Amino acid sequence: MSPSDAPIRVTVWNEFRHEKKNPAVAAIYPDGIHQAIARHLASQEGMVVGRATLDERQHGLTEDVVEETDVLIWWGHMAHHEVSDEVVCRVHDAVLGGMGLIVLHSGHASRIFRALMGTSCDLKWREAGEREILWVTKPGHPIVEGIDDHFIIERAEMYGEHFNIPEPEEMIFISSFAGGEVFRSGCTWTRGAGRVFYFRPGHETYPIYHHPDVLRVITNAVRWAAKRPSAQQTYGHCPKIGWFAT
Amino acid sequence: MSPSDAPIRVTVWNEFRHEKKNPAVAAIYPDGIHQAIARHLASQEGMVVGRATLDERQHGLTEDVVEETDVLIWWGHMAHHEVSDEVVCRVHDAVLGGMGLIVLHSGHASRIFRALMGTSCDLKWREAGEREILWVTKPGHPIVEGIDDHFIIERAEMYGEHFNIPEPEEMIFISSFAGGEVFRSGCTWTRGAGRVFYFRPGHETYPIYHHPDVLRVITNAVRWAAKRPSAQQTYGHCPKIGWFAT
Amino acid sequence: MSPSDAPIRVTVWNEFRHEKKNPAVAAIYPDGIHQAIARHLASQEGMVVGRATLDERQHGLTEDVVEETDVLIWWGHMAHHEVSDEVVCRVHDAVLGGMGLIVLHSGHASRIFRALMGTSCDLKWREAGEREILWVTKPGHPIVEGIDDHFIIERAEMYGEHFNIPEPEEMIFISSFAGGEVFRSGCTWTRGAGRVFYFRPGHETYPIYHHPDVLRVITNAVRWAAKRPSAQQTYGHCPKIGWFAT
Amino acid sequence: MSPSDAPIRVTVWNEFRHEKKNPAVAAIYPDGIHQAIARHLASQEGMVVGRATLDERQHGLTEDVVEETDVLIWWGHMAHHEVSDEVVCRVHDAVLGGMGLIVLHSGHASRIFRALMGTSCDLKWREAGEREILWVTKPGHPIVEGIDDHFIIERAEMYGEHFNIPEPEEMIFISSFAGGEVFRSGCTWTRGAGRVFYFRPGHETYPIYHHPDVLRVITNAVRWAAKRPSAQQTYGHCPKIGWFAT
Repeated sequence: MSPSDAPIRVTVWNEFRHEKKNPAVAAIYPDGIHQAIARHLASQEGMVVGRATLDERQHGLTEDVVEETDVLIWWGHMAHHEVSDEVVCRVHDAVLGGMGLIVLHSGHASRIFRALMGTSCDLKWREAGEREILWVTKPGHPIVEGIDDHFIIERAEMYGEHFNIPEPEEMIFISSFAGGEVFRSGCTWTRGAGRVFYFRPGHETYPIYHHPDVLRVITNAVRWAAKRPSAQQTYGHCPKIGWFAT
Repeated sequence: MSPSDAPIRVTVWNEFRHEKKNPAVAAIYPDGIHQAIARHLASQEGMVVGRATLDERQHGLTEDVVEETDVLIWWGHMAHHEVSDEVVCRVHDAVLGGMGLIVLHSGHASRIFRALMGTSCDLKWREAGEREILWVTKPGHPIVEGIDDHFIIERAEMYGEHFNIPEPEEMIFISSFAGGEVFRSGCTWTRGAGRVFYFRPGHETYPIYHHPDVLRVITNAVRWAAKRPSAQQTYGHCPKIGWFAT
Repeated sequence: MSPSDAPIRVTVWNEFRHEKKNPAVAAIYPDGIHQAIARHLASQEGMVVGRATLDERQHGLTEDVVEETDVLIWWGHMAHHEVSDEVVCRVHDAVLGGMGLIVLHSGHASRIFRALMGTSCDLKWREAGEREILWVTKPGHPIVEGIDDHFIIERAEMYGEHFNIPEPEEMIFISSFAGGEVFRSGCTWTRGAGRVFYFRPGHETYPIYHHPDVLRVITNAVRWAAKRPSAQQTYGHCPKIGWFAT
Repeated sequence: MSPSDAPIRVTVWNEFRHEKKNPAVAAIYPDGIHQAIARHLASQEGMVVGRATLDERQHGLTEDVVEETDVLIWWGHMAHHEVSDEVVCRVHDAVLGGMGLIVLHSGHASRIFRALMGTSCDLKWREAGEREILWVTKPGHPIVEGIDDHFIIERAEMYGEHFNIPEPEEMIFISSFAGGEVFRSGCTWTRGAGRVFYFRPGHETYPIYHHPDVLRVITNAVRWAAKRPSAQQTYGHCPKIGWFAT
């Protein structure tokens, strides 16, 4: 979208705890969920990919890292409360300034997503390995390029409505589950100059980030959400503009 | 919502062909789908209810009838193309002027709904008597007052995404079907001063308009969509307003 | 909108500092901005009105008060940072649970408004006593009942775009100022089951809360935002629903 | 946005009557408004530009031309009613199928824009050569890349609210006029797979399509609206999907 040919700088953030504590998770993601996603993105044209995790200094999201990120991908689950105020505020400011944010699965309850939404982001859930079908509700949107009218995940954790989010600006996917529930699984919002995409798939005990359609959607979303050149905004006290001040 | 105590004037419009041609439909709706809905509404406080059908003069929607209608309910299926230009334009103008419109089920393909949406309003469908679950996605909205977090219709025609509508302003219900499809079953838009609600339930071969939750939603929607007092708008050539013209 | 005839319980919250410190403000609002608004609302049919201010215990917004409030009106300016975390969270939860919130003028920078929006809510401003014209962009909406296509405030503080808010769900008013700026002066959002209305007019050094159209809009907004009966939502772990669990 | 390097195929459509009848217009646009816009676009990287006008066969919008257009730009004013049903339907279908549409100025009253919006698209107007200021309300959006927080058109026809359109999905610009009116001057919607942008500037008697910021916005909008690869959608009768049909 930018005339520039500069690559998109993606940072994949992962809580990275389940993989260390639970051998079943480690079997699926031996070096972490972030690596599964990052490796795929790094193989795509025009992307440079960094990694960051909770237990690094400043959760790996120092000022420099955030400043040099065009799109941040966020996966967290069991330790949302351990993310510091400082990092939440830094990421929040970066989104308002134009950085894209892709929030995955259990990241719905992360501090940063809730801060951006202004709601609780609560939902229903059930771990029963149920079949999920994701239906495209916005054909033609860049996030679904290369995706057919639906795709199937054989075994998934169920998330059900009511999902307590603000009305999405664009509804991209709705899921149905074998148990009969539905969920708004792909939604976009803008916050300041930044674009936010929530994408549901991805429980740690299923190999969902090896699913080609899931990876394709994430790749598309990175391109869609990437920070773009934008005029600096002026806020606060403002003298009359030129034509009138005379 | 209006301080006025005047009753809401509802007109229930029905194509009224299936009931005359198909004994199975007539068994469910002996005097027509419109009568099943109208009788229920007439039993509610503060509503006066009229009926109109395709084969009446001007489809029962003369200038006088439309002028005196606060909410129009629309059910059609096999004869959308028989609705005259004149009546479509009259209803369209009335909606822009503030009349509410509730479009039911196969009315998605009606000329008036498509004219208001600006899209094809196409969808997938299958008549297989499947179980449908309608999930509330907008708790607290007046249309779902008295409705739990979901309700079930035991046998229904399936409608599936992609439903080719403009992004709804409010998403009220999403359905899942036994066959795995999902559908945006309750959606609102405004067009001019008028409010539009699309509500999916209602195939002619199932007794869906005898279902208490379906009737409750329609009743709530009538109250929500009712025409309200509104200043007359001025369009076209416009002299400078007072403070500036001097 | 509710079939119930119960009155709407409004609480008008005011920071109430300017009036005590600045004689020019006290001359316009001798007993506080909250009293000017509350007295008007108390004269309207079907409303019971309470008052609360910053320097009361818990800012006057105890659990009991919030629990018994259907619509909260919020005016603050110089002491946003003195509002406690506890009260911000309590009001936030109440809005998600269905309480209406009307945020006035400089309340754009309040902690509660920013928490609900997820953005900075920054804007441009200039205190130059400029003429403001508010144009109706949503005729037929209940908030503009009784309002012509525009109204004028002779002397106002300027607020200018960019106003850093999420895209409004409904745009009700846009202002122009003598200096050439524009502003989205009346906007609505839903957050959970609650309705939020931001309304720009109201600087403390101008008698704007004595302006009949401003008071009318606030009155209409109270009726529009009032908490409505709503089914209790269930979140968290969720067994399969009845029809499927068998 | 597409990984493809194929150029964007733009067609600039112009009614092209004023320029032939009114020497004052011809002095500004000697070979037509369409040529002023098309020449600018043709000078941009990655665009191939065609022209089409009302008085050509099929208004220059034959099946082949529309089929090979990624973005259509539309300017009309005095002869909207002369555009044939056939061409309006062809363009409508193309938009639903993913073609972008940019509607300029008096094109607000064109048949194609009204068909896509579902409303009257009426507004107030006044030809008084007034100064217009366009304020950016969506910083960071690709359409305003390279645009400061506002730009000024020295002499313009006034358009004023209420502009009878559906609530925009994205509000990009709001204008103020010297006479005190405001107008939603840059708005986006999606219809089917297609993106629609309405952009207000452009009266035939002012050299507005020579203004660098106006041309830049149109150029940005072409890139934003360009048709993207999209899966073919299936509508109508639909058997159960594979996993369930067994």
